[in-house]
Amino acid sequence: MNYRIVCNVLGKVLLAEALLLMLPLAAALACAESPLPFIFTILPLAAAGGGLSLVKIRKPDLFAREGFVIVGLSWILMSAFGALPFVLSGDIPHYVDAFFETVSGFTTTGASILTDIEAMGRGCMFWRLFTHWIGGMGVLVFIAAILPVSGDHYMHIMRAEVPGPEVSKLVPRARKTARILYLIYLAMTMIETGLLACGGMSFYDALLHSFATAGTGGFSTRAASIAAYNSVYIEMVISVFMLLFGVNFNVFYLILIGQVAGALKSEELRVYLGIVAGSVLVIAANIASQVGGFLQGLRFSLFQVATVISTTGFATADFNTWPELSRWLLVLLMFVGSCAGSTGGGIKVSRMIILFKTYLNELKQLILPTRVRRIWLEGKPVGDATVRSVLVIFHIYIAIVGLSVLVLTLDGRDMITNFTASCACIFNVGPGLGDVGPTGNYAFFSDLSKLTLSMEMLLGRLEIFPVLFLFAPSVWKKR
Amino acid sequence: MNYRIVCNVLGKVLLAEALLLMLPLAAALACAESPLPFIFTILPLAAAGGGLSLVKIRKPDLFAREGFVIVGLSWILMSAFGALPFVLSGDIPHYVDAFFETVSGFTTTGASILTDIEAMGRGCMFWRLFTHWIGGMGVLVFIAAILPVSGDHYMHIMRAEVPGPEVSKLVPRARKTARILYLIYLAMTMIETGLLACGGMSFYDALLHSFATAGTGGFSTRAASIAAYNSVYIEMVISVFMLLFGVNFNVFYLILIGQVAGALKSEELRVYLGIVAGSVLVIAANIASQVGGFLQGLRFSLFQVATVISTTGFATADFNTWPELSRWLLVLLMFVGSCAGSTGGGIKVSRMIILFKTYLNELKQLILPTRVRRIWLEGKPVGDATVRSVLVIFHIYIAIVGLSVLVLTLDGRDMITNFTASCACIFNVGPGLGDVGPTGNYAFFSDLSKLTLSMEMLLGRLEIFPVLFLFAPSVWKKR
Repeated sequence: MNYRIVCNVLGKVLLAEALLLMLPLAAALACAESPLPFIFTILPLAAAGGGLSLVKIRKPDLFAREGFVIVGLSWILMSAFGALPFVLSGDIPHYVDAFFETVSGFTTTGASILTDIEAMGRGCMFWRLFTHWIGGMGVLVFIAAILPVSGDHYMHIMRAEVPGPEVSKLVPRARKTARILYLIYLAMTMIETGLLACGGMSFYDALLHSFATAGTGGFSTRAASIAAYNSVYIEMVISVFMLLFGVNFNVFYLILIGQVAGALKSEELRVYLGIVAGSVLVIAANIASQVGGFLQGLRFSLFQVATVISTTGFATADFNTWPELSRWLLVLLMFVGSCAGSTGGGIKVSRMIILFKTYLNELKQLILPTRVRRIWLEGKPVGDATVRSVLVIFHIYIAIVGLSVLVLTLDGRDMITNFTASCACIFNVGPGLGDVGPTGNYAFFSDLSKLTLSMEMLLGRLEIFPVLFLFAPSVWKKR
Repeated sequence: MNYRIVCNVLGKVLLAEALLLMLPLAAALACAESPLPFIFTILPLAAAGGGLSLVKIRKPDLFAREGFVIVGLSWILMSAFGALPFVLSGDIPHYVDAFFETVSGFTTTGASILTDIEAMGRGCMFWRLFTHWIGGMGVLVFIAAILPVSGDHYMHIMRAEVPGPEVSKLVPRARKTARILYLIYLAMTMIETGLLACGGMSFYDALLHSFATAGTGGFSTRAASIAAYNSVYIEMVISVFMLLFGVNFNVFYLILIGQVAGALKSEELRVYLGIVAGSVLVIAANIASQVGGFLQGLRFSLFQVATVISTTGFATADFNTWPELSRWLLVLLMFVGSCAGSTGGGIKVSRMIILFKTYLNELKQLILPTRVRRIWLEGKPVGDATVRSVLVIFHIYIAIVGLSVLVLTLDGRDMITNFTASCACIFNVGPGLGDVGPTGNYAFFSDLSKLTLSMEMLLGRLEIFPVLFLFAPSVWKKR
């Protein structure tokens, strides 16, 4: 373990967070709220970050190992500090609650412990939804975009932070890749803000909901979430943007550089849109009689499918009361999740494609054992190591869901609440079914359960290994 | 595909079933019931079986492909014919119900559609529980044990029928291996029958419950299952035998030939017993206050843990009403299941060990990428193909559970019922939670759901591939 480089980069992460906190600070000042909660968070952050980034890097070696550790620690530290404004302002007085809410924000889960959302100060609310935006693309990608980073080694960090089985560099240099990603991200957020403001949302609400859409987070400024606006236009804009932010950003890059045909040929994109279309139709038909017709069914179903598969977690309807078929289909969509290289969570469509092709191959292998078979994705062969890691990561997700539910059962809630809470957190969706449904929240869980769910959110957002790594003693050996 | 050998062996399977039906026929005659339902099943079975086994084998080539197809078709045909006595006797007038009950018997699931168990005739009841015994060790292993089979090719059939990631021959010849397995099976069934009869059960009940224990099935002659006897002695005998029948039969063979130390060193056995001990203690503590003390808790918890991990499915308590921790732990135990090479279902302990070691390896690989790592089980390296097939089979189980629930939701029951019914069927446990709990049954499901669940039971018992194979067009090509 190259401790010096780990400390140095962590220092930069904390400084970046201090910098990002200037925005909610400004929002608090603009709304004539006390800036102190933010100032008393920025000061220790800047001190710790400044101190750590003074550590001189002797050898610039940064391997996968360091990349994982940096990413795992960054996210935990960022959440630990990021929770302070909520506590200091008194909006969320209990630290564990504030930590849960911040982890939920950064990991773009959107599970909330707030029982009275409208009561929160505007500065804190800005920070709460801004964490979605920061977490969506990742703070280390942000650092890569704004700071001069030393060459290609930084790819190891980005690889650990950007979701998906294989991370492709858009352009040869990590820094330029990070900048392109953030520019697309920023542009799309601004377009959505504009469109929402045109639909009658205040600029503040439009911006904050765009943060939450862009990160596929799902926090809202309203207790009733998007249902509060009761506007088909706003729902459609948000549906489309949720689906867009669930798409691999490579697709947008290809479109930007004019390769539209190549972009639309993406296998993952087609499967993703196919799953969306199929689910929307099935659910619309299934709920039609309950919501007053197929068209109304389509409206609710498109929004809920988009919000679940992109793992955003906004609500326009209480799908908790929908028929069992729709409820179960939404649970399955949580597992699938969005595309690799997007801001969404879940297991990812490309992994599902690899899994499905692996099943088929295994069956073919049994029928005709002599041939050697490769798995292809997007016209390229998928390496054996990637296939194995996709298979393994799926198991670990299932194992973590299964074991976490054991902890949640201690709080005495029913099985559907516990199971879907665990799924909704690890897959970064937010709302589940039962007591954690769209009209419920996570406030009733014990501190132990909240910490377990926070850990699940981090494991889900960082796709398991950066977090598990921190518990492996051999990672910490010097070399 | 070597069609001639497939037809020939299928013919023998049907003849074997006709032979085995002589026992319930005798039971019906002994109890002065009409023998006609059995006679009218035996006649077409013998005709079809006799006809098929006349097909001459030109080439004795029997590869994995033929093995899978023979096993898959055998189990479907056996169930299709085996359902006839229930229909003809009027005990289960609806054919889909009878088919479900027979599949549940042969696959040793123990899920029942009977609403009035005590009303069934004794001949049919004998057949109902005897199917557990036949299905436990497998009818093709039975044929291998009694008929002269042509050499080692027959191992391909046994491999497809005996559960577990890798099937080891006890002795070089398939026939002798099959005989040893059946002799151990028969001897243990007889010992259990004797012990239960000593505890006050009638010989008929003792024999039938021993059939159901040996196959880890779970059907009972009583609606209240084992609770009907309200005897600690009987519960303890059955608990111990359920656990024993969940152990790899290789262990018993090693003990028989005097290698007791070697037998007890089995890694799978130790993990299996460790999981049992841990779960029994946790559940006993969890239910203590509800059932009147820790000792009483131990009594119920030992029985339920044994019945679920061995995937038998007897009941002495309505664990549906237990606290959530115990309920969820029992669901997790369904997934784990018994040891490979036992008569139990589930994913199997040895597969779980391989999975866990694969996770660890994957993590180590990320930390130190240079070394090549092997997975060891029982002191032997596990081949890459086996590891991959274990990873894949786990996914297919999860995928089938997830998709089957979609079909079940159409019947309008709650999610816990649908989810645990799907798990209880594919893992061959029998009872689940909710409406399919220990005091419920599967009668309320629609025909479509019953057929879906029947398919799940077959997929679970034969561990996926023999059944999936039947749907692959390329399997059916001549060569």
